[in-house]
Amino acid sequence: MNDRIPAPASRVPVDDLFAGAPPSVSIYEVGPRDGLQNEKQILPTERKLEMVEGLIDSGLKRVEITSFVNPRWIPAMADHMEVASRVKRPQGVQLSALVPNMRGLDGATRAGMEEVAVFMAASETHNRKNINKSTEDALRTYQGVVGEALSRGMKVRGYISCVYGCPYEGTVELDEVLRVCHAMRQMGVYELSLGDTIGVGTPRQVEYIFRGLMRSGIDLDNVAVHFHDTRGTALANITVALQFGIGTIDSAVGGLGGCPYAPGASGNVSTEDVVYMLHGMGVDTGVDLDKLVAISARLGGQLARELPSKYLKAHLGHCARLGQTVY
Amino acid sequence: MNDRIPAPASRVPVDDLFAGAPPSVSIYEVGPRDGLQNEKQILPTERKLEMVEGLIDSGLKRVEITSFVNPRWIPAMADHMEVASRVKRPQGVQLSALVPNMRGLDGATRAGMEEVAVFMAASETHNRKNINKSTEDALRTYQGVVGEALSRGMKVRGYISCVYGCPYEGTVELDEVLRVCHAMRQMGVYELSLGDTIGVGTPRQVEYIFRGLMRSGIDLDNVAVHFHDTRGTALANITVALQFGIGTIDSAVGGLGGCPYAPGASGNVSTEDVVYMLHGMGVDTGVDLDKLVAISARLGGQLARELPSKYLKAHLGHCARLGQTVY
Repeated sequence: MNDRIPAPASRVPVDDLFAGAPPSVSIYEVGPRDGLQNEKQILPTERKLEMVEGLIDSGLKRVEITSFVNPRWIPAMADHMEVASRVKRPQGVQLSALVPNMRGLDGATRAGMEEVAVFMAASETHNRKNINKSTEDALRTYQGVVGEALSRGMKVRGYISCVYGCPYEGTVELDEVLRVCHAMRQMGVYELSLGDTIGVGTPRQVEYIFRGLMRSGIDLDNVAVHFHDTRGTALANITVALQFGIGTIDSAVGGLGGCPYAPGASGNVSTEDVVYMLHGMGVDTGVDLDKLVAISARLGGQLARELPSKYLKAHLGHCARLGQTVY
Repeated sequence: MNDRIPAPASRVPVDDLFAGAPPSVSIYEVGPRDGLQNEKQILPTERKLEMVEGLIDSGLKRVEITSFVNPRWIPAMADHMEVASRVKRPQGVQLSALVPNMRGLDGATRAGMEEVAVFMAASETHNRKNINKSTEDALRTYQGVVGEALSRGMKVRGYISCVYGCPYEGTVELDEVLRVCHAMRQMGVYELSLGDTIGVGTPRQVEYIFRGLMRSGIDLDNVAVHFHDTRGTALANITVALQFGIGTIDSAVGGLGGCPYAPGASGNVSTEDVVYMLHGMGVDTGVDLDKLVAISARLGGQLARELPSKYLKAHLGHCARLGQTVY
């Protein structure tokens, strides 16, 4: 039939919308840190260690396990030293921890972390309210922290939040995003994780921002996407990021988390939702989805709440499970 | 800064990923039918009439208000005659109702419907289990129903379910989808609504199917997308549909609904989630999002459950509301 009917002129710009998509994606799991730090229930240390080991067992190769912040800021991360000291570190797995300052870096160093992450916003107001510094001061502080971490032989990842919008300023100028990206890269941060902290981003905005990054000389090989699914657009935004060839996606098992400083921010995009979509698209992740969703289901029970992951809900609802589609 | 730094070679296939996207989209609201028919709670007729009028007041121009099916099949639609007879029909608003057979068509005619919709699956097994007919028999039956509706001066819309997968067969062959699409178009159906009934579709599959449609001579101006968000991929799939220039999107306020015949199918993609994303992308819908989400919040109360819409949850959680992003 297909051959006998003349084809209309294509209105699709290219032969393959995903020509630039990577064959495999590296999932950077933030559930134990960005996820748990924003849950009402505080997970006991033993459960956290179980969680991290389970995530690694499911095939995840990069996990952010805790945050070396002052417990007065984030009580849920008060056991950072114990978690980081006791966690198993299998071959080929890269564990990371958030450090807000030199003191946090020293703690991470004592705990034997080989990778740390620093964070700030692209929004001046968010930096002032969140880390009590101007963007300029935050960059100056991290210059020292990142330099010191590198001198200790650590890898450093840089989070930039409010890239897609700020709860205080609304729209964040692209030039502000680019300024922080370039400054962090110049410090020696190996990867930039661009966050939609309050989950307001939409697909054309992703395109706008990524074209801006490319135009300004940021190599997308060093860029990760970090979406929160507050308004349901996270997987749509990731779809566009894939079209730009982005090879690293931050996510949290179950869709845990949010942002304590951003009013109304809900969870990170769910790791199982991301993995389901990627596998359906023929993009490899190395993750065993059944093992992953089992961890998610257990966490929902431990945190005594229904986690937002749609794939988890489908799984718990005993949905028809289908094999990956062939195309 | 942008100008001084040399730009790397773009790995993005085109200058504008959304070059083919429409400036405005027609939302086809299925909440009162596809949504409510699958809710545990049955909404009283008065509430249904309020709901439809509220949806129209929010700016929706196309609403499927009920289904003229046997109440033994779908008790929630037992009041179809009263709903269709009493509903207000403002100028410029197109109301539709589902009709499974000639008897349903007669009821819709008596109730004064000017548009009806017929439905079948692309999957042989789903047709046998759902409407108790083979695909061949279903097409023969609808030939008569559609012909009669057209002779009565009605517009007829055609739903094709299980386009992205079948709970019984798993993968559904593209040729089966194309066969039903062409048969329905030849009957005189003005629009094909292609459904991911059990919410298993992913973005590259959308591209695969839409290229198949174009290759086989189906004009995409006559195609609507109908995604269920069972695994969270609905907005991602819609993003790709937009890249194909699709101008009609089916959705249900609050993310109501599912499919009673498809094990585990969860709700339709939420109208407010779709509208939020489209407006964020600069695509017009004519819908007042604040009015829409207010209806959704009220329905959640009436149905005594937390509706799945993420935008609704963000709204109820008093998220930071930001203006649309400029790009």
